[in-house]
Amino acid sequence: MMSEQKEDKCDTIDNDSNRYERGMAILRQVGGENYDAPIRALQDIAPALGRFTIEFGYGDVISRPALGLKPRQLCTVAALAALGNAAPQLRYHIHGARNVGWSPTEIIEVLILVTVYAGFPAALNGISAAREVFEQRGDRPSGNQASLGSETTSDRYERGMQTLQRVSSGSGATVVESLKDIAPDLGRFIVEFSYGDVINRPGLDDKTKELATIAMCTALGTAQPQLAVHIHAALNVGATVEEVVETIQQMAVYAGFPAALNGISIARKVFADRTERP
Amino acid sequence: MMSEQKEDKCDTIDNDSNRYERGMAILRQVGGENYDAPIRALQDIAPALGRFTIEFGYGDVISRPALGLKPRQLCTVAALAALGNAAPQLRYHIHGARNVGWSPTEIIEVLILVTVYAGFPAALNGISAAREVFEQRGDRPSGNQASLGSETTSDRYERGMQTLQRVSSGSGATVVESLKDIAPDLGRFIVEFSYGDVINRPGLDDKTKELATIAMCTALGTAQPQLAVHIHAALNVGATVEEVVETIQQMAVYAGFPAALNGISIARKVFADRTERP
Amino acid sequence: MMSEQKEDKCDTIDNDSNRYERGMAILRQVGGENYDAPIRALQDIAPALGRFTIEFGYGDVISRPALGLKPRQLCTVAALAALGNAAPQLRYHIHGARNVGWSPTEIIEVLILVTVYAGFPAALNGISAAREVFEQRGDRPSGNQASLGSETTSDRYERGMQTLQRVSSGSGATVVESLKDIAPDLGRFIVEFSYGDVINRPGLDDKTKELATIAMCTALGTAQPQLAVHIHAALNVGATVEEVVETIQQMAVYAGFPAALNGISIARKVFADRTERP
Repeated sequence: MMSEQKEDKCDTIDNDSNRYERGMAILRQVGGENYDAPIRALQDIAPALGRFTIEFGYGDVISRPALGLKPRQLCTVAALAALGNAAPQLRYHIHGARNVGWSPTEIIEVLILVTVYAGFPAALNGISAAREVFEQRGDRPSGNQASLGSETTSDRYERGMQTLQRVSSGSGATVVESLKDIAPDLGRFIVEFSYGDVINRPGLDDKTKELATIAMCTALGTAQPQLAVHIHAALNVGATVEEVVETIQQMAVYAGFPAALNGISIARKVFADRTERP
Repeated sequence: MMSEQKEDKCDTIDNDSNRYERGMAILRQVGGENYDAPIRALQDIAPALGRFTIEFGYGDVISRPALGLKPRQLCTVAALAALGNAAPQLRYHIHGARNVGWSPTEIIEVLILVTVYAGFPAALNGISAAREVFEQRGDRPSGNQASLGSETTSDRYERGMQTLQRVSSGSGATVVESLKDIAPDLGRFIVEFSYGDVINRPGLDDKTKELATIAMCTALGTAQPQLAVHIHAALNVGATVEEVVETIQQMAVYAGFPAALNGISIARKVFADRTERP
Repeated sequence: MMSEQKEDKCDTIDNDSNRYERGMAILRQVGGENYDAPIRALQDIAPALGRFTIEFGYGDVISRPALGLKPRQLCTVAALAALGNAAPQLRYHIHGARNVGWSPTEIIEVLILVTVYAGFPAALNGISAAREVFEQRGDRPSGNQASLGSETTSDRYERGMQTLQRVSSGSGATVVESLKDIAPDLGRFIVEFSYGDVINRPGLDDKTKELATIAMCTALGTAQPQLAVHIHAALNVGATVEEVVETIQQMAVYAGFPAALNGISIARKVFADRTERP
């Protein structure tokens, strides 16, 4: 049925006749069995929006080779969970994350990361969405996963500070230091909880976590100093300038152009700052 | 039943005895058949909030003559869809938009505009809300509407740049230009997609779209540079200073006073900037 | 069942073996009969998130003695209602507010305050959540409460200005004054509606209202000038610097660390400003 509609559209595609085809190819990878359900659902009253989703969202943005589909999809899950106001799309993209190769454990890990940047309610509602998706798919979290949180290290502060130093090269420590005047315990929580308990967890590599954090901070639009810290961190742990730009740019699709534009403004400052430094 | 409750309230209305009456008159136009359902629903545990809705929301703000009820209602739909966290009110105000004279096609158009400022998930959930409302009302989107998106122009970039120049008189082009250093394709997407595909669509006039954009950017509170660009644009395409102020001010009702106040701060700078210029 | 799981965890608690116990003690006070339901629900796929909720959320943050559990709980309700994207947690914490001693009337009052800072839709959806909770508990709002909104003072502006002066010591009046150039009626609405109708209501004391306002403005992350005004106001009506810091810090749990950090930055400026002044 979709293929017929696609033919209907072919003569309306302008400028780049591959955008629709390219978008559909990506949508198939992300959406799996019912990949075109959200598009078909729009045929009744907003077919143009369906076309834009394929051509612009998937064809122009998500298909770009400078960042792989797999990290893109986890960034989308993180951003939608952080925003907390788009449950149907969050479920669709958790399916998408599974379809492009992320395990249930890894998806849970990125949702645990949401606690740090958008709070526990956003993370908990993300977990509820994941539970629904996993049940639909017959996914079973392994026993191994259940014990992921059981660290034996006794010194959370030291462990957190090591992680903070590894990823932030000092900029995070400056934030912690700056809190000593009026909110020293908030600084301690950043080290012990954010870095020691959460960011230190082994389930995802540093680069993936930092790109997901950039996606969240960009989408929220209220975390600009933190976005700068984590653009630095992403570059520190091996992300390229291009990957950072792609992650921010992708948020135009999921949180709107203002979010992406304001994120790019922050990135510009960070890039300039790093070029100046030896 | 409502009229009895109104009488109960009459002796509690202070300062301007017409606020309640004026508010109810507007509420009747917006709410249609069950106009007082949301107010009646509050009688059990929060009757004061019902009274405030009528007296302040409708009586003080929405009734103001400097902006018509029709554009106000579409701005509310755009803002609530962009916020994405108030589904019952979004449905109520889509009914309201129909009741004050907007067609299903026009409502769909403003929801498609939401993609640009708040992303596809917000727009898609807005469309879902609209579908529910249209089904309740027996509205049938015309065949004509379904083909609205089928532009024949082959050059999306050129078309987008023409639209951008027409509405922004340069300030939008400056944004696109400024992206050439690190995110040139994001600039290209603004021209091709935001302006060429979406803002260029014929279903709503420029002024209506710009006022809806001002409403969205004000309500989100995270799009201040973009709010400035679109206040300029609204004035460029024929909105008055008063209409811009009214649109921003109305967001006090739907997104809170901080959103409206911070929007007014941006407007003040734009107005000053334009007065200085010849 | 929870106690068995707690024992499983005991050997995994590091650094401060009291964090889990302390957190569970608070959770019991907040959560009442089914206090551990949200934690048990996480055992299947995200047990670490359950542990973090108890150890960090309740054990590290909510248990801190510098602010009582009762004001903390009302701040959480206000913030979650203002964010508007976490309905399950809002209901849980309205139960929690009842469990730590707030009356239905007082909870309704704080939700009416939400209109001012996050708009009517957020307040209305908060009231809907409260209604569900009250029905589950068999709470009956008293007749007395229903008439709370019936002020007899005839001059809303004068009453609002008195309240504004009492709590803001001038900073609020400056905001109103500053609007006289382009949006004088928005300034009038702040006096008449925000202060005269809402903030003036007798159901909660000034300090409680100001702490709840700080919680909302911090969580939203888009109300920074207003956050500064209300930190001043909280201090003016008797809150301590420590209580302000605790309120902001608590938002790390409910809205993420960036929200709390950016709130602390505003607080730092306000505290410095007040120290400079005689």
